[in-house]
Amino acid sequence: MVEVRRPISISDAVSRVMNYEFNQAIDYVPLLESDLRFLAEDLLADHDVPPFNRAPYDGYAIRSEDTSQASRQNPTRLHVVGDIGAGSLYTDDLENGQAVRIMTGAQMPSQSDAVVMLEEIHTNEADMVTIIRPHHHNENISFQGEDTKKDQVLIEKGAIIHPGTVALLATFGYDIVPVFRKPRIGILATGSELLDVHEPLQPGKIRNSNAYMAASQVKRAGGIPVMYGKLPDELDACVDVVTDALQEVDAMITTGGASVGDYDLVPQLVERLHATTLFNKVAMRPGSVTTVAEKDGQLIYGLSGNPGACYVGFELFVRPLIRKALGARDLHLKRSIGVLDSDYPKPNPYTRLIRGVALEREGVQYVKPSGLDKSSSVIALGEADVLIVLPAGSKGYKRGEEVNLLDLHDQKGSQWPWDIPIVSYK
Amino acid sequence: MVEVRRPISISDAVSRVMNYEFNQAIDYVPLLESDLRFLAEDLLADHDVPPFNRAPYDGYAIRSEDTSQASRQNPTRLHVVGDIGAGSLYTDDLENGQAVRIMTGAQMPSQSDAVVMLEEIHTNEADMVTIIRPHHHNENISFQGEDTKKDQVLIEKGAIIHPGTVALLATFGYDIVPVFRKPRIGILATGSELLDVHEPLQPGKIRNSNAYMAASQVKRAGGIPVMYGKLPDELDACVDVVTDALQEVDAMITTGGASVGDYDLVPQLVERLHATTLFNKVAMRPGSVTTVAEKDGQLIYGLSGNPGACYVGFELFVRPLIRKALGARDLHLKRSIGVLDSDYPKPNPYTRLIRGVALEREGVQYVKPSGLDKSSSVIALGEADVLIVLPAGSKGYKRGEEVNLLDLHDQKGSQWPWDIPIVSYK
Repeated sequence: MVEVRRPISISDAVSRVMNYEFNQAIDYVPLLESDLRFLAEDLLADHDVPPFNRAPYDGYAIRSEDTSQASRQNPTRLHVVGDIGAGSLYTDDLENGQAVRIMTGAQMPSQSDAVVMLEEIHTNEADMVTIIRPHHHNENISFQGEDTKKDQVLIEKGAIIHPGTVALLATFGYDIVPVFRKPRIGILATGSELLDVHEPLQPGKIRNSNAYMAASQVKRAGGIPVMYGKLPDELDACVDVVTDALQEVDAMITTGGASVGDYDLVPQLVERLHATTLFNKVAMRPGSVTTVAEKDGQLIYGLSGNPGACYVGFELFVRPLIRKALGARDLHLKRSIGVLDSDYPKPNPYTRLIRGVALEREGVQYVKPSGLDKSSSVIALGEADVLIVLPAGSKGYKRGEEVNLLDLHDQKGSQWPWDIPIVSYK
Repeated sequence: MVEVRRPISISDAVSRVMNYEFNQAIDYVPLLESDLRFLAEDLLADHDVPPFNRAPYDGYAIRSEDTSQASRQNPTRLHVVGDIGAGSLYTDDLENGQAVRIMTGAQMPSQSDAVVMLEEIHTNEADMVTIIRPHHHNENISFQGEDTKKDQVLIEKGAIIHPGTVALLATFGYDIVPVFRKPRIGILATGSELLDVHEPLQPGKIRNSNAYMAASQVKRAGGIPVMYGKLPDELDACVDVVTDALQEVDAMITTGGASVGDYDLVPQLVERLHATTLFNKVAMRPGSVTTVAEKDGQLIYGLSGNPGACYVGFELFVRPLIRKALGARDLHLKRSIGVLDSDYPKPNPYTRLIRGVALEREGVQYVKPSGLDKSSSVIALGEADVLIVLPAGSKGYKRGEEVNLLDLHDQKGSQWPWDIPIVSYK
């Protein structure tokens, strides 16, 4: 009656998922809509930056040789022959004895080789400026190409687009930006106990929170959630919905029914779909009964109905697939090291991933579990910033021990956080 | 000719901005559209969690007293009288000698007081189960209210909505979520040197990158950018656009023309608008010529035309105002401590905010400047994660010294990072 499942390691489970991939596609979006998308091509400089020698300050463009004898006692007087605002040009050659008023960012006149800052102009009369120290060749000039050269790769494809990226895209003329298409992830909640969010509570029932939570996780990861509602624990209906959904989405998530009880649908669903099980048990808590199966190159996730287990299963196994579709370089949750701020006495034969809150004090990141550490607790999810990774072992953990953390809100990611050295626990 | 401006400290400048506030308003949005908005009301539990005593595992609900003599040699046999899926109920009282098959999450039958896990059932025959050890009163039960009690405040207003928050909102019936309205921030780029992003380069000109960058910063901070395009350095046109814009937006940003050159519009713009200058110089680099003025309760920001200075001015002075409108609790960029990974030899009379890249090694956050450290460098913005805060001083900084960092991509924020102890530099 009880199906025997063989648990595999988290690392092995993630590897099996990452063997599958979406067909990456490219969208071309307006620059103003490109935030938080992932670049689908290398960002190239289409010109030198600066594009010409320019003034870094407001002042006067001069020929430095004119000032070689300048001093407070023996000021050099130059004739102001022009006035260049940013964006306009002085088209003549600058001659000896001449100066041109120049604004920050404006192009240096031909034959000029230094800028005297406005604040350094000693006296000021109509058409004349007075300079009281020598200026050297190339003083106060921003040189063409000193920031970057034409055709240089400035940002590699796969980078997430932030305001700084937008500045570069605008500078180099990307009014339309090539980005990887967001994968569409279907979500179906199963369970006869589920009410809609707007329904009043009824005896024995709870509201469907997992589907909405997973939708929010899909969005945070960079995908598009496609909602297939909720179904009672009826196999035929679930088979129909998932079969249809697989025509419309890149991958499918079900929540609930992932365990081994009589009503648990996922094993039967996998069988009826003629899908191949990648794994149906992972040596971790929560989420040990997570199932992932594959049908014709598409992945079907059977996440647990417990909110904590569903949440963790998503972040470990769905998020990196979405990131892969997006062309991201660092596919997994960002790993860092923290210090436990409270004892965690429970030993466990499986690796624990505890929802936690991080707080920095004097350069050290301290963490403690948020709320009740039970997979069924939704409260712990409300304030969690990190997953605290506690490797399997026969004793608990003590305050002050170093632990690995996985950052839930970060957008940057880690390459492969699963070869985790066990920091302070053997 | 050169206007004399008195610089004020960053802390003072931020304080002056924060004395002004938007009129906060509330939007009611569908749960599926509430991600990254800020809660406008405390999130209340509308019921106990769990809402009833329930089974945490698949198994059998029993009366524990029936098993008091149970052992491998002397198993207790119980009669299975019912079968409860999650969401269904067993409506009779459980009597001595009886057991009810129960699924994870289902409500315990009246008079039952323990759950025997499915894996612990020793033998199995039709309608009978055999139990081989005593179970104690209340063993394996998730109790009503153990996770949270009805009417408890679970998340305070002002919190940003993440997937964990969404799970709580769904659990407690918030199909429509009250969130603070996003403030609208107008953006106008000024400068006769500016080309549109789609235009080919021309001599002496550059493309308008600041307006797009600022729009992306507004979005990252949680506001709505309203684009007013770009204008050449012509005062009348700028006065008209800003005057009209102030009718449509909550605050207005201009970029460019913030300096003291002949073509710099901001001082004249402030005068023509009859606005009151809060400050027009800040003791920081880049961004020292940032101007903020107030007219009839609305703020007008004159940010520098240099990309780096514009970026920093936004993050320090615009972002916290947006966060205030959003009801956030921690209005400023999140501060943490890092270790310089390269020398920074330049001394400066002003505090420097250097665009930097952070990399964790063995629990320590190392940082170094990204790209060229010049305010005109757009390249440095592409990869920056943090601003490295180097307080004013007469010598530079050395690799290995501790410094304060402001995290650019974080959504959580800090309360008031500006009373910064100078960590390793006097």
